[in-house]
Amino acid sequence: MKYEFNAEREFDIIAIGRACIDLNATEYNRPMEETMTFTKYVGGSPANIAIGSSKLGLKAGFIGKIPDDQHGRFIESYMRGVGIDTSNMVVDQEGRKAGLTFTEIKSPEECSILMYRDEVADLYLNSSEVHEEYIKKAKILLVSGTALAKSPSREAILKAVGLAKKNDVKVIFELDYRPYTWKSVEDTAVYYALVAEQSDVVIGTREEYDMLENKTNGQNKETVDYLFKHSPDLLVIKHGVDGSYAYTKLGEIFKGQAYKTKVLKTFGAGDSYASAFLYALLKGKEIENALKFGSASASIVVSKHSSSDAMPTVEEIEELIAVKA
Amino acid sequence: MKYEFNAEREFDIIAIGRACIDLNATEYNRPMEETMTFTKYVGGSPANIAIGSSKLGLKAGFIGKIPDDQHGRFIESYMRGVGIDTSNMVVDQEGRKAGLTFTEIKSPEECSILMYRDEVADLYLNSSEVHEEYIKKAKILLVSGTALAKSPSREAILKAVGLAKKNDVKVIFELDYRPYTWKSVEDTAVYYALVAEQSDVVIGTREEYDMLENKTNGQNKETVDYLFKHSPDLLVIKHGVDGSYAYTKLGEIFKGQAYKTKVLKTFGAGDSYASAFLYALLKGKEIENALKFGSASASIVVSKHSSSDAMPTVEEIEELIAVKA
Amino acid sequence: MKYEFNAEREFDIIAIGRACIDLNATEYNRPMEETMTFTKYVGGSPANIAIGSSKLGLKAGFIGKIPDDQHGRFIESYMRGVGIDTSNMVVDQEGRKAGLTFTEIKSPEECSILMYRDEVADLYLNSSEVHEEYIKKAKILLVSGTALAKSPSREAILKAVGLAKKNDVKVIFELDYRPYTWKSVEDTAVYYALVAEQSDVVIGTREEYDMLENKTNGQNKETVDYLFKHSPDLLVIKHGVDGSYAYTKLGEIFKGQAYKTKVLKTFGAGDSYASAFLYALLKGKEIENALKFGSASASIVVSKHSSSDAMPTVEEIEELIAVKA
Amino acid sequence: MKYEFNAEREFDIIAIGRACIDLNATEYNRPMEETMTFTKYVGGSPANIAIGSSKLGLKAGFIGKIPDDQHGRFIESYMRGVGIDTSNMVVDQEGRKAGLTFTEIKSPEECSILMYRDEVADLYLNSSEVHEEYIKKAKILLVSGTALAKSPSREAILKAVGLAKKNDVKVIFELDYRPYTWKSVEDTAVYYALVAEQSDVVIGTREEYDMLENKTNGQNKETVDYLFKHSPDLLVIKHGVDGSYAYTKLGEIFKGQAYKTKVLKTFGAGDSYASAFLYALLKGKEIENALKFGSASASIVVSKHSSSDAMPTVEEIEELIAVKA
Repeated sequence: MKYEFNAEREFDIIAIGRACIDLNATEYNRPMEETMTFTKYVGGSPANIAIGSSKLGLKAGFIGKIPDDQHGRFIESYMRGVGIDTSNMVVDQEGRKAGLTFTEIKSPEECSILMYRDEVADLYLNSSEVHEEYIKKAKILLVSGTALAKSPSREAILKAVGLAKKNDVKVIFELDYRPYTWKSVEDTAVYYALVAEQSDVVIGTREEYDMLENKTNGQNKETVDYLFKHSPDLLVIKHGVDGSYAYTKLGEIFKGQAYKTKVLKTFGAGDSYASAFLYALLKGKEIENALKFGSASASIVVSKHSSSDAMPTVEEIEELIAVKA
Repeated sequence: MKYEFNAEREFDIIAIGRACIDLNATEYNRPMEETMTFTKYVGGSPANIAIGSSKLGLKAGFIGKIPDDQHGRFIESYMRGVGIDTSNMVVDQEGRKAGLTFTEIKSPEECSILMYRDEVADLYLNSSEVHEEYIKKAKILLVSGTALAKSPSREAILKAVGLAKKNDVKVIFELDYRPYTWKSVEDTAVYYALVAEQSDVVIGTREEYDMLENKTNGQNKETVDYLFKHSPDLLVIKHGVDGSYAYTKLGEIFKGQAYKTKVLKTFGAGDSYASAFLYALLKGKEIENALKFGSASASIVVSKHSSSDAMPTVEEIEELIAVKA
Repeated sequence: MKYEFNAEREFDIIAIGRACIDLNATEYNRPMEETMTFTKYVGGSPANIAIGSSKLGLKAGFIGKIPDDQHGRFIESYMRGVGIDTSNMVVDQEGRKAGLTFTEIKSPEECSILMYRDEVADLYLNSSEVHEEYIKKAKILLVSGTALAKSPSREAILKAVGLAKKNDVKVIFELDYRPYTWKSVEDTAVYYALVAEQSDVVIGTREEYDMLENKTNGQNKETVDYLFKHSPDLLVIKHGVDGSYAYTKLGEIFKGQAYKTKVLKTFGAGDSYASAFLYALLKGKEIENALKFGSASASIVVSKHSSSDAMPTVEEIEELIAVKA
Repeated sequence: MKYEFNAEREFDIIAIGRACIDLNATEYNRPMEETMTFTKYVGGSPANIAIGSSKLGLKAGFIGKIPDDQHGRFIESYMRGVGIDTSNMVVDQEGRKAGLTFTEIKSPEECSILMYRDEVADLYLNSSEVHEEYIKKAKILLVSGTALAKSPSREAILKAVGLAKKNDVKVIFELDYRPYTWKSVEDTAVYYALVAEQSDVVIGTREEYDMLENKTNGQNKETVDYLFKHSPDLLVIKHGVDGSYAYTKLGEIFKGQAYKTKVLKTFGAGDSYASAFLYALLKGKEIENALKFGSASASIVVSKHSSSDAMPTVEEIEELIAVKA
């Protein structure tokens, strides 16, 4: 099955949500307590997906709120530098800061992170800063779950989803669950379900779908039965090293394999997966091919130091797929 | 047209949201500054509707949070006393208080009110306190808009609506807009639209629909066109002394007249209207007849001192309709 | 011993802190749950003391913040009506409400109360609203402990005390401890001690001094030894029906008796005590005589329905003292 | 004049307040937006002073709250490593984070900083975590003004100062004013004055004393006249490159010169000044000599990359003084 998009749109993808700062350990093979130097990158799931998309040659835009400080200026300047339209990035006027993620690189299996997410600027994007005339220029609105964790960002997202539906923009919901900020598992499920039921495509790990359904050890079949009663017609459920599954409303099931690679750290895999998967869909590739694009992109990023700067080109992805074939 | 409900349910109506205290001026014809004595009643739109329904002989239940104090005990005891099932009313454990509404009775046209709504117990009902096994016992879930104004009550309502939809319980959305507590007009519209689109019946004034649509001077035709694209199949739009209109998805329009009466104060009209209108629908009456029930009930309550204690019986309503015919 | 004041001052007493609304049960001998009518009075310890002082013929002023609503206007109008200078009462501009105290009158021994103190206007008086030119017009600055419970009222009080000290205004600290609002017993003790150490006269119950000293079962002797190392030179410690003690830095001890009366309710006793005691001091009476004034005033107020409106005249107090002599 | 301390104490100095993380630009001569790598150090004025003191051979202790994360463990481990007693450092149990200060090193004159101070662990030290038995073991309690900016840290400091006074521990107040966190200039002045009036020694810049006195262009003479009416008997007022002045209650005035050096960045100067000045006082040196120690230490730290790790030894300080003599 191929997935259809509205061809007459200026932007391939507009992502909405957080754009933050990653501070990745410069020294390898040690816990963060002993890491003395950190390297700065742009981070945050929807920002990474926009960056990844732009590096793949898609026309990307971003809606979000950034601080009025040195970190905020770096974020906007970096994103603009890779070709993203930043005209709808709002500069916070109330002294809020960029979210931070410190990472250690202890071993390929162990990479603890330390997040600063209290009162960060991105969670203060509000509904009056989301504009219909911008959203309706896109083929895809990419929404990440973390932006639902708190008001007023939550209402900004709900409004954006409503506007996308009204204007025939495909809503892609990358579940991107992070425990920070959310107040309860019950409330998380309420908003995840509300947005998933209105989306066209949902992408997440098995654990993230369990969060959405407020259950443990959920089964893909139940998830698929439930969500296909609502708007979605394509669901991607990722099972880590066991690969990922794509389900269509027509009843098709596709399995994607993870590509083995020399892993430096694990973070960044999901965002690179999403950007390459969406790239392939937008380019009219078959879903099984899109799964390969996602896996290849993820395997490239986990072998490198950052989650954003390391996003691959189409050539790199295709080369890896060819080598592994 | 008659409206169909699931006959096999224990409760005719379960209302969810606030149950508060009204403190109505005992002395008439003076501003509140000069009012020295106040009489206590149960108040709050969904509580009033539950009380009104119970007085009309319906089996009613209530989901809400009340304080662990003298006012909370009065509320629960009064509601239980009129026959409401209070088993799902939760007692707050964190020292929160009952909402208060002081009223003056200056003249039939002028009755200013003074509300205490900061950190009130009813806005702290949370999603874990809303139970599927209870909601699925009802023919109707009655939701009032004010409960959406703030978390965690907001999430409790969103969950309740989701459970009602899942279990074939009709969702009746009484818009009940109050400016207190809401943070912005934009956000108000986001949540009102979200719930209205999922409801079966929506009841409100023209001004409340404008709030939902985030516009001014909205037209009934546009409202009807918009909402009938979603779940609702019956909309009631009230135009004050000019009467009210009921629209069905089948394209019918019914007009209801306001009954002239000796008005003591204006508050309480909407809740008495809703309870009698729903009573009539549940009893299988035609919609035009249900509009008469609503108007008659409203006209009785505005001639009396309270909004809850004054709720009429079926006989009083039918007598007024007969007299005015 | 007589107590000396600066004679050349326009105001006998300026009180600072809360002015609120009391809603006293109109019906006697029943719990609040069954009380259906409430009568409105001005309340709040420093407001009551200002009212009591004014009724005794003293020139009183008041510094505080009141809401911009019907209750706020009633408070200002009532206080102005009894002769208090209200020029330094600030009207809140952020929608905050008046504190409320509902009372029941169940029996002379049992009168539970229900307070609304969340985000009340009086706790939002801020330091920029306290003016040196006003405070320096007074013989006495009357401070009540409850105003220390939260910022910014806390800083307003600390500033006022500093200005009083700088301008030779006697600081009278009525401990007036209420558990609401305070976050911890430790913090309560920090601020009570800070202000008590800087005051000239401290008035409170034995239990309130224990709170100040962060101990249980404190002894008057220890309290006196501790506080006389700092600024105070007169301490009044009240032991309920066992009467009260006044201690001077010179080593004198005076005992005051409680006057037996027909008690209607217990609240209001402390404020009437303080206003009459201070009246007597200001009029140059001996301390033992001032203790009688305090006791007589308290015994009159507990036999009546309100705490403010019931404040006695000098004649009533002197008559009672004469009768009981 | 020499300054006397209680000789019979286990600790020379116990500092109380914040211990945070500095992230100093690794690359020089560029704005922070273009700085890609940051090096981690312990930071925060009282932590730096404790570290500086310990490196000078003093027995130092620290009271503060650190996060239960990688940064918190680094802070505690680093401070313990330089010889500080960390037994009264409390680990936060509510997910709060370490304060962060990102610095750029653009030029010796321009070094902008970017602070993360929202809801940081150090501001949540509370009064129940300050223990009399610990404080009374010290010759000096070193208090920094920033810890007064917010409750509950504010109350912890007020309690600590009260305990120090009660137990004959010298209170040294390093004004350390930072605009973050404080709500108003008026409130800042209230608390600065409250603590300064109770301290033995106050150290700050001319601008910081202006903040304390809530004035602009304050004169040293007025400051000295005001504070010597209260507890302080030694005041140090710093005038940047124009040097610093020490005033004693006996009327002495001493002037200290700044030592010229190759400046890398300006931050860290105040903390190194304070630790060396206090070291000299504790070692019984004359005040004019102590001023030299302060200046020499400051001039060493501003020529190096960090504010904590760069703290000099006694030998380095004495060598610089000798060279410059």
